[in-house]
Amino acid sequence: MDNTFIRALNGKPTEYTPCWFMRQAGRFLPEYRAIRSNYSDFFEFCADVEKAIEVTYLPIRELKVDAAILFSDLLVPLIPYKNLKVSIVETKGPIIELKGKLAELDKLLEPYDVEKELSYVGKIVKGFKKKYKNTPLIGFCGAPFTVLSYIVEGGSSKSFQKTKEFIYKNEKNYRNVMENLTNILIKFAVFQLQCGADAFQIFDSWVGTLSPEDYREFVFEYNQRLIEELKKKVDKPIIYFSTGTSGMLNTIKELNADCISIDWRISLKDAVKTIGSERVIQGNLDPVALFMDREKLKKRVDEILLAGLSAKAHIFNLGHGILPPTDPETVKWLVKYIHEKSRDLRSSLMD
Amino acid sequence: MDNTFIRALNGKPTEYTPCWFMRQAGRFLPEYRAIRSNYSDFFEFCADVEKAIEVTYLPIRELKVDAAILFSDLLVPLIPYKNLKVSIVETKGPIIELKGKLAELDKLLEPYDVEKELSYVGKIVKGFKKKYKNTPLIGFCGAPFTVLSYIVEGGSSKSFQKTKEFIYKNEKNYRNVMENLTNILIKFAVFQLQCGADAFQIFDSWVGTLSPEDYREFVFEYNQRLIEELKKKVDKPIIYFSTGTSGMLNTIKELNADCISIDWRISLKDAVKTIGSERVIQGNLDPVALFMDREKLKKRVDEILLAGLSAKAHIFNLGHGILPPTDPETVKWLVKYIHEKSRDLRSSLMD
Repeated sequence: MDNTFIRALNGKPTEYTPCWFMRQAGRFLPEYRAIRSNYSDFFEFCADVEKAIEVTYLPIRELKVDAAILFSDLLVPLIPYKNLKVSIVETKGPIIELKGKLAELDKLLEPYDVEKELSYVGKIVKGFKKKYKNTPLIGFCGAPFTVLSYIVEGGSSKSFQKTKEFIYKNEKNYRNVMENLTNILIKFAVFQLQCGADAFQIFDSWVGTLSPEDYREFVFEYNQRLIEELKKKVDKPIIYFSTGTSGMLNTIKELNADCISIDWRISLKDAVKTIGSERVIQGNLDPVALFMDREKLKKRVDEILLAGLSAKAHIFNLGHGILPPTDPETVKWLVKYIHEKSRDLRSSLMD
Repeated sequence: MDNTFIRALNGKPTEYTPCWFMRQAGRFLPEYRAIRSNYSDFFEFCADVEKAIEVTYLPIRELKVDAAILFSDLLVPLIPYKNLKVSIVETKGPIIELKGKLAELDKLLEPYDVEKELSYVGKIVKGFKKKYKNTPLIGFCGAPFTVLSYIVEGGSSKSFQKTKEFIYKNEKNYRNVMENLTNILIKFAVFQLQCGADAFQIFDSWVGTLSPEDYREFVFEYNQRLIEELKKKVDKPIIYFSTGTSGMLNTIKELNADCISIDWRISLKDAVKTIGSERVIQGNLDPVALFMDREKLKKRVDEILLAGLSAKAHIFNLGHGILPPTDPETVKWLVKYIHEKSRDLRSSLMD
């Protein structure tokens, strides 16, 4: 597939900086909310193939972003585990109930047949690519640590105390579970890519709660294996995303992902310095910056676009998901601005 | 005052690495919980001069740490503001109710007489230093941004969306409020130091939610003014503490604080590299690491102690407050271990 987003992700020069936004199909779009209101259960929505295709395409149509991302959820690969009950409560976020003791978690997560249990994800990917073959589609999954943290915490967390205690006090159990989750996630990712996804993003959203030492000792190898198995089986570009990891980019850069996605807690310039200019970088506007007035916002975007030119290639994104109260008009304006401004920057640097 | 903690804080060589822990007087100690149970209102406890002196000394007696920190709370300087109602709900954390509109916050926070309204804090400091004159006492306050975030969010937060929106959309109002808070905090800090506190820590606990660009544009000047006014009025060493700021230590190092306290999200070694070896550093064990078995914990502590020797001086601490379920026996053991190990490291480096 030849497209600006894919070219940038492969480290090739592009005429402008491509962009997409995490959670771009989500609650900030009135069109999304209208469709969402037909489902009492969020996961029922995720499994409705036709509607999932429709909302996956929504930001392409409405915002003119350069790539679509599969409409789904990090928790989807947890649903088939018989000993987990996964639900999303509108005001509280995700709730994961474990049937059994945490100390026996490695025995409670029985591997399942990904292509059978999550067949609807494959149908969404295939259906999307059949309908919109020229639109690049990003598949995704959570990274093993982040997925594990939902299980151990029973949902979201601020301190991740339970997850860390689980690692420190039950290391063997922890490693068995991580092996299990990594295997399932590899199958899930390969499945999405074989069904036609053009690129893949691994969301390690909560790994920034760890120290660099913990990341190195307890997390790195699972992420690396996930990435390497993917590269071996389906040769398509991979993005590794995390937040709060400014102090461990030195370790993260050793992952064999094609692109490293960073959050706003470090300047893109400093991140490129640490990660190296031979790597594709993605990021890194603070989602709340979309509430700034446009002149202020332009300044921040300009800094990011300029710094991005010092990387091998740059994909503009937010540092985390777009917030529900964001004004869609601002986002539409922003996509246009990023495209225009990044073209201008390239030509002024050529002069 | 000549003492290992104070010498280190002043950048002088010491025979061992001194240590203390944030929230060291708190809920993890059974002796503290016994006293706390006599008060339904937490702030009533903070204002009970005799009891506050007692719990301030508790960790010196029980844990043998090298410094005491005033028993109080970041929210104490908000209590006298007539248009704020500040309370702490045991299960929910702090709740701050604003009587009036956020858009008029700068008019709602009328300056008050610190020495009168917070006279009990002065009495605790004086009383402590009278009773324990050889024990170094750290006074403290929240940094202006962190204190403001409690007011705007109405308590704790995960995303700090309201605070950022307030800054972006009401910059003039924001700057007026920050001026007001900075002035009050300067008076509060000077008051504590003049009453006899030997050092001072500024807690910028939540500033890591910002981008380095936001920190530079909206926060830096208030912290710098707070520090500089303190240094001008009372020449005692100042520690600047923050969390989640690994990506902005480049900016933070420009603050004129004597010591920079960092969290566990960056290795101490990398932090010293960024901040420079001509600065005193404090940190940086993950509070959850205290749940590790001792052999694992030793390894992490050793790395920190060794890295600390590359700084001008090092004060061992956690990256944030000690957690309530921490075993006091582990903490006692840790203090002894830090003292012994850091002596050994110094002599082995001399050989």
